[in-house]
Amino acid sequence: MTSREAVTRLHEIDRELQLLEHANALLMWDEETYMPEKSIDERSQQVGLLQAIIHDRLTSPEVGDLLAAAGASESDPRGDAVLPDESRAFLRALHRKHRREVKLPGELVSELVRAAMIGQAVWREARARSDFSHFAPQLRKLVDLTIRKAEYIGFVDHPYDALIDEFEPWATTAQVRSIFAGLEKRLEGLVGRIRAARKVDDAFLEADYPVDKQAEFSRMLLAGMSYDLTRGRLDQSAHPFTTTLGRDDVRITARYNHNFVKTGIFSVIHEAGHALYELGFSESIRGSLLAAGTSLGIHESQSRLWENIIGRSEPFWRYYLPQLARLFPSQLHGVSLERFYRGINKVEPSLIRIEADEVTYSLHIILRFDLETRLIAGELAVDDLPEAWNRRTKELFGILPDNDASGVLQDIHWSMGSFGYFPTYALGNLYGAQFAAAMRAAIPSLDHEIASGNLRVILEWLRREIHVHGAALTATELCERVTGQALSAEFFLTYLEQKYAPIYDL
Amino acid sequence: MTSREAVTRLHEIDRELQLLEHANALLMWDEETYMPEKSIDERSQQVGLLQAIIHDRLTSPEVGDLLAAAGASESDPRGDAVLPDESRAFLRALHRKHRREVKLPGELVSELVRAAMIGQAVWREARARSDFSHFAPQLRKLVDLTIRKAEYIGFVDHPYDALIDEFEPWATTAQVRSIFAGLEKRLEGLVGRIRAARKVDDAFLEADYPVDKQAEFSRMLLAGMSYDLTRGRLDQSAHPFTTTLGRDDVRITARYNHNFVKTGIFSVIHEAGHALYELGFSESIRGSLLAAGTSLGIHESQSRLWENIIGRSEPFWRYYLPQLARLFPSQLHGVSLERFYRGINKVEPSLIRIEADEVTYSLHIILRFDLETRLIAGELAVDDLPEAWNRRTKELFGILPDNDASGVLQDIHWSMGSFGYFPTYALGNLYGAQFAAAMRAAIPSLDHEIASGNLRVILEWLRREIHVHGAALTATELCERVTGQALSAEFFLTYLEQKYAPIYDL
Repeated sequence: MTSREAVTRLHEIDRELQLLEHANALLMWDEETYMPEKSIDERSQQVGLLQAIIHDRLTSPEVGDLLAAAGASESDPRGDAVLPDESRAFLRALHRKHRREVKLPGELVSELVRAAMIGQAVWREARARSDFSHFAPQLRKLVDLTIRKAEYIGFVDHPYDALIDEFEPWATTAQVRSIFAGLEKRLEGLVGRIRAARKVDDAFLEADYPVDKQAEFSRMLLAGMSYDLTRGRLDQSAHPFTTTLGRDDVRITARYNHNFVKTGIFSVIHEAGHALYELGFSESIRGSLLAAGTSLGIHESQSRLWENIIGRSEPFWRYYLPQLARLFPSQLHGVSLERFYRGINKVEPSLIRIEADEVTYSLHIILRFDLETRLIAGELAVDDLPEAWNRRTKELFGILPDNDASGVLQDIHWSMGSFGYFPTYALGNLYGAQFAAAMRAAIPSLDHEIASGNLRVILEWLRREIHVHGAALTATELCERVTGQALSAEFFLTYLEQKYAPIYDL
Repeated sequence: MTSREAVTRLHEIDRELQLLEHANALLMWDEETYMPEKSIDERSQQVGLLQAIIHDRLTSPEVGDLLAAAGASESDPRGDAVLPDESRAFLRALHRKHRREVKLPGELVSELVRAAMIGQAVWREARARSDFSHFAPQLRKLVDLTIRKAEYIGFVDHPYDALIDEFEPWATTAQVRSIFAGLEKRLEGLVGRIRAARKVDDAFLEADYPVDKQAEFSRMLLAGMSYDLTRGRLDQSAHPFTTTLGRDDVRITARYNHNFVKTGIFSVIHEAGHALYELGFSESIRGSLLAAGTSLGIHESQSRLWENIIGRSEPFWRYYLPQLARLFPSQLHGVSLERFYRGINKVEPSLIRIEADEVTYSLHIILRFDLETRLIAGELAVDDLPEAWNRRTKELFGILPDNDASGVLQDIHWSMGSFGYFPTYALGNLYGAQFAAAMRAAIPSLDHEIASGNLRVILEWLRREIHVHGAALTATELCERVTGQALSAEFFLTYLEQKYAPIYDL
């Protein structure tokens, strides 16, 4: 069998894997949106079975043999050098996925799934009771299993390398640590200056904002962002999310809070940013495993660029505030553009990550990254975690959690065994700002376009420069190609410093 | 391996098959309700793949070996006599399904799927143009493939036996023909007397009935019928249907016509009748292939019993008309119970099956059964079909189709290769009336209960006598058990004659 023949057969196998992944995504989307409540048990069995079928196919000896026949190996996952670039990108991605899954014994995978299921239930109860000790034994188990997982997958430097790679392929602990170190220092400086500065009023955001009007405004935003409802949907769910159910089916959900208009609006922009990425892959990779975000960090760069850099900009609301005010005339009566703009950009050190503003947000991530790398390296014991959490919170934010629920127990990730996920949120901020700087250089009239409601120029640039590539380029390759240099926190920090100086008269 | 061990393993395999069937049902439900329009191509690929996986598992040599090890064979599909009754019922159902699928060469199945796909497209165009000759070549192909299918499956008497068995397991052509013969004669007599009798006024059903109010009334009806929305949903789709997505997830859809209140109301009662059956299987068979309607005829008996025998009864509207009138005060102003009751029960020979009343409906089926058995037996050529259709329509209804679209081209079934499906609709009418007679005998206060809105007694009786069994009893066994005798058209005819005599002053 020639390497080309092997690639052709692998494409067929991959195509079916993608169809199964999409079917599974529908099962999960439905669970969060429309499924009757009593069906939850069977639904998890359906999902479990499809996942097992996907796992069996991905790790089948046939796939291993075909990868070998195509010349893909640990030393060169891109395979036979005679193959076209696109095949080599495909092989690299498939080899990585296959390799990760075959290395894990089925037994360990099942144990992790079980531990995560129990973990979430126990975590929910512990958080409700605000009692870390209730969660600690199960978390210890999850950490131990995760360390074993890292060992099976293998790593050169740090066991956490094997974990972060699941969410941010090819990233390493050392790389992230070095970027975060510079980020932390300058962010702390900025936060300090903001805390010492004037106060910002955002009381007008907390009024009665009827949910149906918020949904109407959301649809207006989606139209402005060119999110195509013949290839997607907007529904409501307890937690907003984006999911891909097909090449032409990328759906988002929103949650509206009728007492607080910010939640719904910015989460819709955020999720639409994710969705536009998934809808923009080039024709040649559509339907394959390359039709995916190349990393969670890059995915998050798309959502955060839209949500924060565009969606919280002054030109954006120059265009959209009058439309919002038409829907909420009494709630926004007398609120000027300047007041609105400052209000939605209020910065305040706080305890809860998901409520954090764009300046302090990355500090929440740095705290988690720091603690989880130490947990995985065996340098921090689970029992010492609350104390370490509180100490770091005090250092970074100048405040102390009132209790475990608003501290170490606030996030679900560890209870699900998702170690290595957190840093991707902050990487998203950095990639997003670095991409935005390149976009701004390429489109000198950007602010003018945004203020005219012409968001299409943004989508076109993102699509051409980023979306089309899907996972054919790694995050690093993409970043070099789009911005001409490696990832750096500089762009994000400059963006923040320039944006917040006038807001806070710094 | 003992027969018991074989049964245990078969239950495991079956359990996963059911999970996959339910996942597939979600893909199809979503396609009809919420899927973005551009996703249709990929969705059919997803469904095709899951169906192929289900087929491969069902026809695997392992299943064949296990069935043999359990003692299930052509001569005794119920397997080893030492097994408990429930296992024997399970083996019979699985053996039948396995046997039907293994007998069909994969090549023929693919050819049929392709021909049906093209068939539907061509049929749609032919119907739009009202031109049978455009559909004829593809229909010939479908008939030929279906005859080959019947030959592969095998039959004793008539090739149609192999086809009807797909939808009405264990039924035979001769049996259905003999029942339909008696039915036709007496229905024609009744229709003749009604045509000669007084006219019924139903003009008030055609007014502007806002759809949201119709949906509100539908939810009221569903509550009255004890359709549990924690185990189901009501959505809207182009054609109403019921689908089972899990043991605790049976959904229905409705289509409301804002100019005609009958369509929506009665289709909701109809679909809820189907859904209540699927929600009522006994705990011991839930999640297995026995948790299914035992035949389409029995399934249809449940929907039609609710829709026609209960839903179009006078006591039912004694309770519900005031509630309907509260929602539509102007539309139903001055409409008495008697006028309403007569209006919803208007009988009129017509050309279109799906618009037919409960008296003439079965004649539409008899026509189709007659023609399709002759097509399959090679006694009627496809080219002669329109003429045969029109002649029989004239005989049965005294009217002639204006064109092919309102005649031979009106139904989608043949274009999908679904030969053998039609009779189940009429069998449903007969089983429904026979069950209703038994229920009436068991609950002397039935009309009083219905008029008090106490529909729960009906559900309880149906559940206890019919639903719990699922497919553990065949349609014939169930009928004997519930009514003490074999299926007979007598109950249905008596029901109609007694009901319509006062309505039409016969």
